[in-house]
Amino acid sequence: MKHKPYFFITNDDGIFAPGIRTLIDIVKPLGKVIVVAPDKGHSGQSHAVTVGTPVRLNKLVSDPDYDEYSCSGTPVDCVKLGLQQLANSKPDMLLSGINHGSNAGINVLYSGTMAAAMEGTINQVPSLGFSLTNYSHQADFSGTRDSIHAIITRFLNHPLPAGVTMNVNIPDLPAYEIKGIKFCRQAQGRWYEEFDRRVDPFGKDYFWLTGEYRPSDNNPGTDQWALDNGYVAMVPLTLDLTHLEYLNQKKEYV
Amino acid sequence: MKHKPYFFITNDDGIFAPGIRTLIDIVKPLGKVIVVAPDKGHSGQSHAVTVGTPVRLNKLVSDPDYDEYSCSGTPVDCVKLGLQQLANSKPDMLLSGINHGSNAGINVLYSGTMAAAMEGTINQVPSLGFSLTNYSHQADFSGTRDSIHAIITRFLNHPLPAGVTMNVNIPDLPAYEIKGIKFCRQAQGRWYEEFDRRVDPFGKDYFWLTGEYRPSDNNPGTDQWALDNGYVAMVPLTLDLTHLEYLNQKKEYV
Repeated sequence: MKHKPYFFITNDDGIFAPGIRTLIDIVKPLGKVIVVAPDKGHSGQSHAVTVGTPVRLNKLVSDPDYDEYSCSGTPVDCVKLGLQQLANSKPDMLLSGINHGSNAGINVLYSGTMAAAMEGTINQVPSLGFSLTNYSHQADFSGTRDSIHAIITRFLNHPLPAGVTMNVNIPDLPAYEIKGIKFCRQAQGRWYEEFDRRVDPFGKDYFWLTGEYRPSDNNPGTDQWALDNGYVAMVPLTLDLTHLEYLNQKKEYV
Repeated sequence: MKHKPYFFITNDDGIFAPGIRTLIDIVKPLGKVIVVAPDKGHSGQSHAVTVGTPVRLNKLVSDPDYDEYSCSGTPVDCVKLGLQQLANSKPDMLLSGINHGSNAGINVLYSGTMAAAMEGTINQVPSLGFSLTNYSHQADFSGTRDSIHAIITRFLNHPLPAGVTMNVNIPDLPAYEIKGIKFCRQAQGRWYEEFDRRVDPFGKDYFWLTGEYRPSDNNPGTDQWALDNGYVAMVPLTLDLTHLEYLNQKKEYV
């Protein structure tokens, strides 16, 4: 890349989460940076946009090569508003994360981190989302630094084609135990919910959503297999949800 | 189907929206029905789930073959909570909608209607989402009745395979002007945002998200083409977002 690259950074855990602070640290030495991230946590917000209420921005930092804004909206709002109103030019790359928790397998459907990255792709910015497979706010992100640096550098030199978003999941291991990086397909699996039913002081029920993710497929080639075996898993994502196998069997509706 | 079918109905425009009332009217004569829908509008909520705050239910109707609940959560919460806590048995079919507005093309990524249907598929219930290409609350849904009745009957007799969700978009036409039903692929297109920037009475900016959807692909075979030409468009959706074309070119990460 001949000019200094321009990066757009966002996430779904909120602008003060350790994950995004690590990502900013990794990316700052590589070029110019604009951060537009939610002012609070938005886990599980998927591709939600704010409709019917206005969105606010707060400028937090404005240095020569570094701008930082918090936004009252969803991760996808941050991308839409940031690209249209705040970025000085079209960014060379959009980076979302580092998410506190896995976005492997079907988690990608619920993920605000990956929806923000997909919104970047919709806006023709090469976009990647990063996740560490540790849900704790106090997770140790030091093991992710080398892999993320290598992946960003690789995709600056060989840009992602239009319409492809990269979903990068990093196992919760020290850097020296990470065996490498693999392109993968999305594993199958699902959440099994348990609703914790409680009664409020006024005698009315309420429900806490809790649950457990169970992969049903960790065959070689899947992101789940890669993570279980100490590799960084990279799944290229499409914006086209058409089930081509079914469609190709059913040319005509009868 | 030998027994009386059991239907689960939800939507994203809220339980009192004319679209879901039309769908309930169509489905009630066909079998037993449970409705679990949001207590307010959740357009643009995509696959969002409620994390960190509890969800409440309200029983509104309890007749022999018909139960109706409103839920304080998102469309996906309605499906998770409804299937796990409220349904008497596994429904034979989950129906979401009728959405007020198009979910053709890339709109599917933002749609709470279609996320609820996909959540049904994740829970192994054959699931379809219906949309009318008219965003108005006062839209006339009468033109949708024949097509929706025909499609439900067809998929009761020939169930959707596991992992396939059907995205049904209906053109805003009187029934006699609808030319037929077509299986389609998802058209390309995107929203072009305009943020309406205003200043509040205290001198601070706020932004209203507005915009316009522009299809960039209405070739024959797409949902956009079908709708533009007076057909009901049915796109089968996958839960697997892997970009297979890219992945197949890149066996190894280098």
